[in-house]
Amino acid sequence: MQITSINNPKVKEWCKLKLKKYRDLTNLFIIENEHLINEAKKNNFLKETIGIDESLNPDYLITKEIMAKLSDQKSLPNIIGICYKLPQKEIGNKILVLDNLQDPGNLGTLIRSSVAFNIDTIILSDDSVDLYNEKVIRSSEGIIFNTNIVRTNLTSFFNNLQNKYPILITDVEKGENIKNILPLKKFILVIGSEGQGVKEEYKKYATNFIKINMNEACESLNAGVAGSILMYEINEAYHE
Amino acid sequence: MQITSINNPKVKEWCKLKLKKYRDLTNLFIIENEHLINEAKKNNFLKETIGIDESLNPDYLITKEIMAKLSDQKSLPNIIGICYKLPQKEIGNKILVLDNLQDPGNLGTLIRSSVAFNIDTIILSDDSVDLYNEKVIRSSEGIIFNTNIVRTNLTSFFNNLQNKYPILITDVEKGENIKNILPLKKFILVIGSEGQGVKEEYKKYATNFIKINMNEACESLNAGVAGSILMYEINEAYHE
Repeated sequence: MQITSINNPKVKEWCKLKLKKYRDLTNLFIIENEHLINEAKKNNFLKETIGIDESLNPDYLITKEIMAKLSDQKSLPNIIGICYKLPQKEIGNKILVLDNLQDPGNLGTLIRSSVAFNIDTIILSDDSVDLYNEKVIRSSEGIIFNTNIVRTNLTSFFNNLQNKYPILITDVEKGENIKNILPLKKFILVIGSEGQGVKEEYKKYATNFIKINMNEACESLNAGVAGSILMYEINEAYHE
Repeated sequence: MQITSINNPKVKEWCKLKLKKYRDLTNLFIIENEHLINEAKKNNFLKETIGIDESLNPDYLITKEIMAKLSDQKSLPNIIGICYKLPQKEIGNKILVLDNLQDPGNLGTLIRSSVAFNIDTIILSDDSVDLYNEKVIRSSEGIIFNTNIVRTNLTSFFNNLQNKYPILITDVEKGENIKNILPLKKFILVIGSEGQGVKEEYKKYATNFIKINMNEACESLNAGVAGSILMYEINEAYHE
């Protein structure tokens, strides 16, 4: 189907998906570029495709002007897709909790690392950046289709699970070297926001305060890096 | 001194520093927010301050309208600074080489991690993002004032040093686990660009191809994360 008017109701509907509110209402989100579309298709999450290049055979053929309205990128993609949101599955044994993570790039990075280091569940606090934000989807490089990510209230999450898992909370001051408490077959690893770290109100749930061994001249690592190194270390000890 | 006109020559001069060309010509760059200004001052790199808040006692008091022109951020800083570029010192023994790194956030992240994991020299290829890009400076969190970063042509760099250091190049396919070649007291660790990895033309300089142990379901890690984990591992082995 061809659409040439920017005022077409379908275009308005797609545009609204740039806002979290409408993604939540419709359970849909936008993905850009072919690699992501192939991943979505392979995993049965692709609803429809929208493109400016007839040879890619999109469900909807649109103009460049409309694509510029829909796309988040400076250099326009030839094709974008509308996807169904991912189902939230049961939580597993190797859990990464993200408390108030705001940077979309950091979330995408941590999702990639979580797959690399065998995390089976990511818990995203309800005040974190939206998983379906275009920048998160892009920086995760399509790996979201192979993960289990649950958005929830952390207080009830910790209350439910506090005696069932060791809960590891990063703390640069009172933390001990992560290596000292390994191996762990089952854990909840909590990473805080970029500026503040893990919220004080959650520290009472900690079984262990942990940190990464480093030169003190560096006040803190980037949140994506810190989380990734911790996941890496836990995974290394598990396999040794 | 007070400046109220957006056409003041000083304002035009500062504005030009948003472009790499003028930063290179003048050897100056802009920093935003108080923490960075304090770091620059402590290290004697601060030339002058420009602010909208009289109580902060800036060298130049400007209007919000002018600040909006100078600042890179959505929420305006109260004060910004003009800094002298950092001197490039002699290279050391623990060297991180960044080949064609384009993402300013990744560069800032890698600079922070390099200080955390005791790298003494960063070599930035001349086709990488500019070190003095506002986003790099911001994501490095002021740590640039405590590092030695040299921008240079990588071919001549490798030609000069190829028999003097082990040269470690990341390669997901033919790389061996970084742990197998540790400890190293002296090394050149090469990290490639976000999409392509290390350029083919540099692979002939490799003493070792290395990789990070991970689940193959993840095709690649974020460049900032991969580099940070490798620096972390090398640093851990050195201290053990």
